[in-house]
Amino acid sequence: MADTAPTDSSSSEVVENGVPTALLLAGSPSPGFPVLVEGVPINGPLLDARAGEKFLLDVFPIIFQEAVVKGTDVNEKVCEWRHPAELRALLDVELGECGEPHRQLLQRCRDVIAYSVKTVHPRFYNQLFAGLDYHSLAARWITEALNASVYTYEVAPVGVLLEEEVLRTLRKMIGWTSGDGIFCPGGSVSNMCAMNVARYRLCPRVKTAGLSALPRLVLFTSGEAHYSIQKAAAFLGIGTDNVRSVAVDDRGKMIPSDLERKVEEAKAEGAVPFMVVLTAGTTVLGAFDPIVAVADMCERWGLWLHVDASWGGSALLSHRHRHLLDGIHRVDSVAWNPHKMLMSGLQCCALLLRDDTGLLRSCHSASASYLFQTDKCYDSAHDPGDKSVQCGRRDDALKLWLTWKACGRHGLEARVDRAFACARYLADEIKHKEGFELLMEPEGTNVCFWFIPPSMRGQPRGQLFWQKLDKVAPAIKTRMMLAGSMMVGYQPHGDRVNFFRMILISPSVRREDLDFCLSEIERLGCDL
Amino acid sequence: MADTAPTDSSSSEVVENGVPTALLLAGSPSPGFPVLVEGVPINGPLLDARAGEKFLLDVFPIIFQEAVVKGTDVNEKVCEWRHPAELRALLDVELGECGEPHRQLLQRCRDVIAYSVKTVHPRFYNQLFAGLDYHSLAARWITEALNASVYTYEVAPVGVLLEEEVLRTLRKMIGWTSGDGIFCPGGSVSNMCAMNVARYRLCPRVKTAGLSALPRLVLFTSGEAHYSIQKAAAFLGIGTDNVRSVAVDDRGKMIPSDLERKVEEAKAEGAVPFMVVLTAGTTVLGAFDPIVAVADMCERWGLWLHVDASWGGSALLSHRHRHLLDGIHRVDSVAWNPHKMLMSGLQCCALLLRDDTGLLRSCHSASASYLFQTDKCYDSAHDPGDKSVQCGRRDDALKLWLTWKACGRHGLEARVDRAFACARYLADEIKHKEGFELLMEPEGTNVCFWFIPPSMRGQPRGQLFWQKLDKVAPAIKTRMMLAGSMMVGYQPHGDRVNFFRMILISPSVRREDLDFCLSEIERLGCDL
Repeated sequence: MADTAPTDSSSSEVVENGVPTALLLAGSPSPGFPVLVEGVPINGPLLDARAGEKFLLDVFPIIFQEAVVKGTDVNEKVCEWRHPAELRALLDVELGECGEPHRQLLQRCRDVIAYSVKTVHPRFYNQLFAGLDYHSLAARWITEALNASVYTYEVAPVGVLLEEEVLRTLRKMIGWTSGDGIFCPGGSVSNMCAMNVARYRLCPRVKTAGLSALPRLVLFTSGEAHYSIQKAAAFLGIGTDNVRSVAVDDRGKMIPSDLERKVEEAKAEGAVPFMVVLTAGTTVLGAFDPIVAVADMCERWGLWLHVDASWGGSALLSHRHRHLLDGIHRVDSVAWNPHKMLMSGLQCCALLLRDDTGLLRSCHSASASYLFQTDKCYDSAHDPGDKSVQCGRRDDALKLWLTWKACGRHGLEARVDRAFACARYLADEIKHKEGFELLMEPEGTNVCFWFIPPSMRGQPRGQLFWQKLDKVAPAIKTRMMLAGSMMVGYQPHGDRVNFFRMILISPSVRREDLDFCLSEIERLGCDL
Repeated sequence: MADTAPTDSSSSEVVENGVPTALLLAGSPSPGFPVLVEGVPINGPLLDARAGEKFLLDVFPIIFQEAVVKGTDVNEKVCEWRHPAELRALLDVELGECGEPHRQLLQRCRDVIAYSVKTVHPRFYNQLFAGLDYHSLAARWITEALNASVYTYEVAPVGVLLEEEVLRTLRKMIGWTSGDGIFCPGGSVSNMCAMNVARYRLCPRVKTAGLSALPRLVLFTSGEAHYSIQKAAAFLGIGTDNVRSVAVDDRGKMIPSDLERKVEEAKAEGAVPFMVVLTAGTTVLGAFDPIVAVADMCERWGLWLHVDASWGGSALLSHRHRHLLDGIHRVDSVAWNPHKMLMSGLQCCALLLRDDTGLLRSCHSASASYLFQTDKCYDSAHDPGDKSVQCGRRDDALKLWLTWKACGRHGLEARVDRAFACARYLADEIKHKEGFELLMEPEGTNVCFWFIPPSMRGQPRGQLFWQKLDKVAPAIKTRMMLAGSMMVGYQPHGDRVNFFRMILISPSVRREDLDFCLSEIERLGCDL
C-alpha cells in the first residue's frame, strides 16, 4: 500500500526504491568502507533501533489509555461489534509488498484495540477468563520484551527458576510436598499430557512400540468433562469411542457407582482401563466431581486419577471453598489454569503430578543433544524442556509469580472469595426476580439461568414453550453484542434449551454490575 | 514476607490485618450501605484500578530502559550468569501468604530483567530465535493487554480476522491460492497436528476407534529432522520405532533413493506407510531436504508429505533464497515459525495445509456446544477454535501482521537476505582464520565450526585429538557465559565432536559483531 496519508518525518520513514519500509536502514550508516556480501551491506545494522524505540514510546500511551484505562472503564462499551466483512475492510487487513509509515502504524494499533472485545471490562462474563490483574500484565510485558524460551536454564535462568517455584507453590496448595509439573499451552494440552503419562505408566513400551502393540485402552470421564478429553483421546490415538461416559447427577457431578459399573463393563469387553478423569469446576454448570469416593476406587483398581481443575483449581486458595476439592492430594495429576480465576492472562496452565520418580520426563523426553547437553556448566536437571511436548515454550510463570508477590495467598484468597460471593449474590437475585429462573444453585462461580420474556410468563411448559425459550438467549445475545453493553455466554445443555451462563471472576465486578446485567437482559429481551 | 523496606505511601499500600496486600481495597469504598455476601463486601471493586495503573506507568520505563534499550545495546552484557542456587536467593523466589509493596515489586521487575538472558542482544546466537522486532513487540504488548482467546470470532473478532489473513499470506508465499491452517503453540505442536491430519486422511475412523483398530502405521523422516517428530510419534500413539530414519548425504539432506528403500522395507514388513516428513532448515546443520524428488515419490505412493519449515520457511520471502524450498507448493502441509527468522516473538507458529476440504477441522473438532454455537449472529465458519487441539489459544497473528504492515514483504526479504549474507561472511572469515574450521559450507544461516586451540594446531587427527577437541567448545561456552559477552550454542553431531553453531537472524547484527565473535572465541579458548 502506498503511503498517501501525511506522515511524521521521523527517521523511520526511509524510502527505498520508492518503497517506504519502516525502520529499514538503506546503505551503510557506519563509518568506513561498506562491506558488501552477496550485494548486501553488512556493516552497520539494518534496523533503525532509535526509530523502533520511538515506536514503542509512542504506542505505549495508546495501549495504556485505550486498552487498559478505557478497556476497564465500566462506562465504555465491552465490544464494538462489526460483522466480519465490514471489520476486514475497517482494519484493512491485507498484507502487501511495502511497509507503512510510523503514524499509520500507530493508527492501526488504535484500530486493533478499538474493535477488539474488552475481555478486561467489568461486564465481560462470557468465558472462563475475565478481568485485569495489573501485576500480571506488567509481568507479561516483561516476558514479551525478554522473549525467552523456557527449555533450558542457560537461555531462561529466571524463567526456569520461577516456573519451578510457581509449580512447587501450586503443588503445596494441593497438599503435595514433592512431585513434578510443567506449564502447558492450555488446559487441553495439560489434559493430553496427563493422559499420555497415565498411558506410559501403564506400559512404558507404548512410547517406542505405539498402541498397535497394546490391547485396547479405555478411560472414564463424565459427560460434563471438558471437550478436550475427547480431543486428547483422538489425538493420542486412543479414539473417542474409548472414552467412556460416566453418568452425572442433576447437579452435573459424576456418580461413583456408575463409574464402577462402566469400568466393569469395559473389563468384560476385554478392554484395558487405564485412567479416570474428574472435573473440578465443569465448563457449563461449574460442578465439582466427588474426588474422595473416586480416589478410593482408583487406588483399588490401580487406575491413574487425573483431575481437570483448569477452572475450579483456584478454589484451593480459599479456606472457605477449598472443600470443593476435598481429596485432591490423593490423585495422580491435576490440570490447573491460573489464567482463569487468578487472571494471569492467556495462558498460564499448570500440569501438576504427584509422581516424583521422573515419569513426566521419561514419558516425554527425546534427549536432543543440541539442546540438552549433558556437559553444561550447571546441573542439567534444571532444564525442564524435555518434560514438555513442546520445544520452544513461552515463560508462563513470571506473570503468576509477580501477581503472587503482589497479593500474597491472602490477596488471591480474597479474590476467590469475592467471586464466589458475587455468584451467590447473583443467584439470589435471580431467584427473586420475575422472569428469571435459576437452573440450579451454583456450586462454583458459574451462574446458569433462563430469562423468560413477559410474553411467555405463566405459559404452560410444553414443547412449544421450550422451543420458543430456546431462541430467547441467542436473540438477546445478538442484541447485547450490537449494544456492546455486556457479554454473557449461552448454550443448550442436555435436554435443557439455551440458557445464559454468567461467569464471575474479576474483583472489579461490583454489585451494581450484577444488578445491571439482569436489568440489561430484561431490557434487551422484554419484547421477545 | 513482612514489609520492612521503606515504601511509597501510595494508595496501593493497604494494610489489612497487618498484611500489606497490594491493590486490595478493604471494606466498601463506594457510597451507601455495604452489601455483605458470605461476609464479603461486594459493592465497590476489590481491586484498586488507579494503583494498578500507576504500577503499569511506573514499570513501563523500567521495561523500556532495561530490557529494550540496554537489552539491545551491544556494549552491555548478553547475560549476567548466576548458578541456580545463587540466583534463587538473589531473586528471593519464594511465594508466601502476604503481598509486597509497590516499590519492592518494581525492584523485582528490575531483578527479573537484570538476570535474564538478553535474547534480543545483537550477540545472542544461541537459538533459532534472536533479535528484536519493535513492531512485533508493540503488537505483543497490545495482545497481552487485550487478552483474547482466538477460538471464536465473537470474543476475538480482530484476532480471528488477522489470523485468517496472515495464514492466507503465508500460504501465498508457498504458492497456494487456497488451503487451510492454524497457529500452534510451537513448531513441535504444528508437526504433531500435521501427523494427526495425515493419519486421519488415511483413515478417518482412527479418531473414534483409535489405533488399536488399525494396522501398524509408519512414517519416514531423516535423522536430521527435529526431535519433535519422535515426540509426536510417541504422543500420538504411533511409537518412535515406527519413525523410520532415512539416510542423509554429507550435507545433512535426505537421500531420496534411501527413502524409496525404507518405504519398501516397511511395506514388506506389513506396516502401513502414511507420511513423509521433510525438513527445510535442519536444526543443527541448517540443511534443506530435496522437496521436488520426494514430492514425486509421495504423489506416486499416495503418502502425505509434510515439510517442517519451522526454521527455513522464511527463506520463501526472499527471491534470492526461496529456491531452497523449490517444490514446496506440491506438499500437503508445512510448519513455519515466523518467530524464528522473522523475529515475531515466541511463539508464532503456523501450520499450513494445501487441503481445502476441511480436513483440519474434521480431524480435530469436538463441536462443543457451549463455545461453537451454531445459532450465532455471524457465520460460525469464522470460529477457528475447532481446528485446533487447544481450547483457549493466544492471539499469535497480530504481531506478525503488524510487522508485515510495517516492513512489507520487501522489508522482510531484506532481513532474510541480510541474515544469509551474514552467514556467508562469517563462513568465509572462518575459512581464512587460523584455528577455525568450518564443518561445511552453510546452506541456510547456521554456521557450524570448530575452534582448534593453539596447543592442538598441527597435531595428528587421531582419536586423542578428537577427544580433546570435544571438550573445547563446552569449556569456551562456560567461560563465555561467565563473561556474558556473547552466546553461541554447541553440540556433538553424529561422529562429529562438539562444535559451535552460530545462528544468524537479527538485522541488528553487524560485520563488527561477527568479527568480535571469532576474536572472543579465540580469546576465551587460546590457553586450552
